Amino acid sequence: MSSAILVLSGPSGAGKSTIIEAASSEIGDYYFSVSTTTRESRDGEVDGVDYYFVTKEEFEEGIKRGDFLEYAKVHDNYYGTSLKPVKEALNNGKLVIFDIDIQGHRLVREAMGDIVVSVFITPPSLKELERRLTSRATDDIEIIKRRIENAKDEIKAIGEYDYVIINDSIDLAKERFVTIAKAARLKWSREELDIFIKEWID
Amino acid sequence: MSSAILVLSGPSGAGKSTIIEAASSEIGDYYFSVSTTTRESRDGEVDGVDYYFVTKEEFEEGIKRGDFLEYAKVHDNYYGTSLKPVKEALNNGKLVIFDIDIQGHRLVREAMGDIVVSVFITPPSLKELERRLTSRATDDIEIIKRRIENAKDEIKAIGEYDYVIINDSIDLAKERFVTIAKAARLKWSREELDIFIKEWID
Repeated sequence: MSSAILVLSGPSGAGKSTIIEAASSEIGDYYFSVSTTTRESRDGEVDGVDYYFVTKEEFEEGIKRGDFLEYAKVHDNYYGTSLKPVKEALNNGKLVIFDIDIQGHRLVREAMGDIVVSVFITPPSLKELERRLTSRATDDIEIIKRRIENAKDEIKAIGEYDYVIINDSIDLAKERFVTIAKAARLKWSREELDIFIKEWID
Repeated sequence: MSSAILVLSGPSGAGKSTIIEAASSEIGDYYFSVSTTTRESRDGEVDGVDYYFVTKEEFEEGIKRGDFLEYAKVHDNYYGTSLKPVKEALNNGKLVIFDIDIQGHRLVREAMGDIVVSVFITPPSLKELERRLTSRATDDIEIIKRRIENAKDEIKAIGEYDYVIINDSIDLAKERFVTIAKAARLKWSREELDIFIKEWID
């Protein structure tokens, strides 16, 4: 009755983490899924918070064991989502939030589509995205360029998402996000439905 | 950006109209779709409120003209939803609410799936449904029996709906309904998405 996965996607610079943070007191108990990666940690990144950092060998063993709900290889590094903490959180009635890309969304929907609600969060325009990425000035110009090219591709896939939120105002975007998260909590898994149907008729 | 259809289904006795009425002040501007039928009006039914009552000939002309978003023939009578008032309401930014059966839901989803959010509303159990139908004592025993048989079939299809609401408490059911209706308003049509993508990249 409250097994829901909320998938968030959107370009870097869309404001996803800001929105989650602003909404966190209003969406009830949730688990923010931490990805596992084989890439090296950057300055300030904390193992278990930003990512679980593992070796390539560990990751590949995990793949063989079927540990991952979804994974992908990007620029010679693996990124993936472990199934175990997700299942635990779902069993505890928590809303599970994923911040993953379009490819990851497709895989999660394939694996657990009955309880997935997905949202694509985007800045109002490409120009605004450029402005935001340039003004935070934390990234190299090459990385910014790549992010912008990625965003142009990603935006074409927004039709695959249940909802699109334009982050033109953080207050409005947060409000929309809270509404969608509350609705997501009302999702039932196929398994829960089957039990309900059986008991209902009895 | 606010073109949404909210489909409600569920057995007679589930409390659909009570929930809509209780929620009506909280879900913003909406249009409750009135079906068209060829069956005779019953005592107290008002043309244009409960149904649009038309002749068989008028209905069949409507079918030929493509007037109906969905229609079905049940026990020698036609029931259907005219497209025109629905389109008008959507163009005016209203949430369009349908109270239709499982078959109608399938047809509406087929025709306008991108903006449909669907909810199946049900009493907590078959026993409770029987109790409610019997206690209101407005219906013939034969009709009640048929409704109960229908409900047993319908409940098996709840997996086709985006959400299921158990009407065990009117306050809770109303609250869940309001949450879903607010989220539905955030739906975008495929057309709106296409325009947005085009403008976003420009």
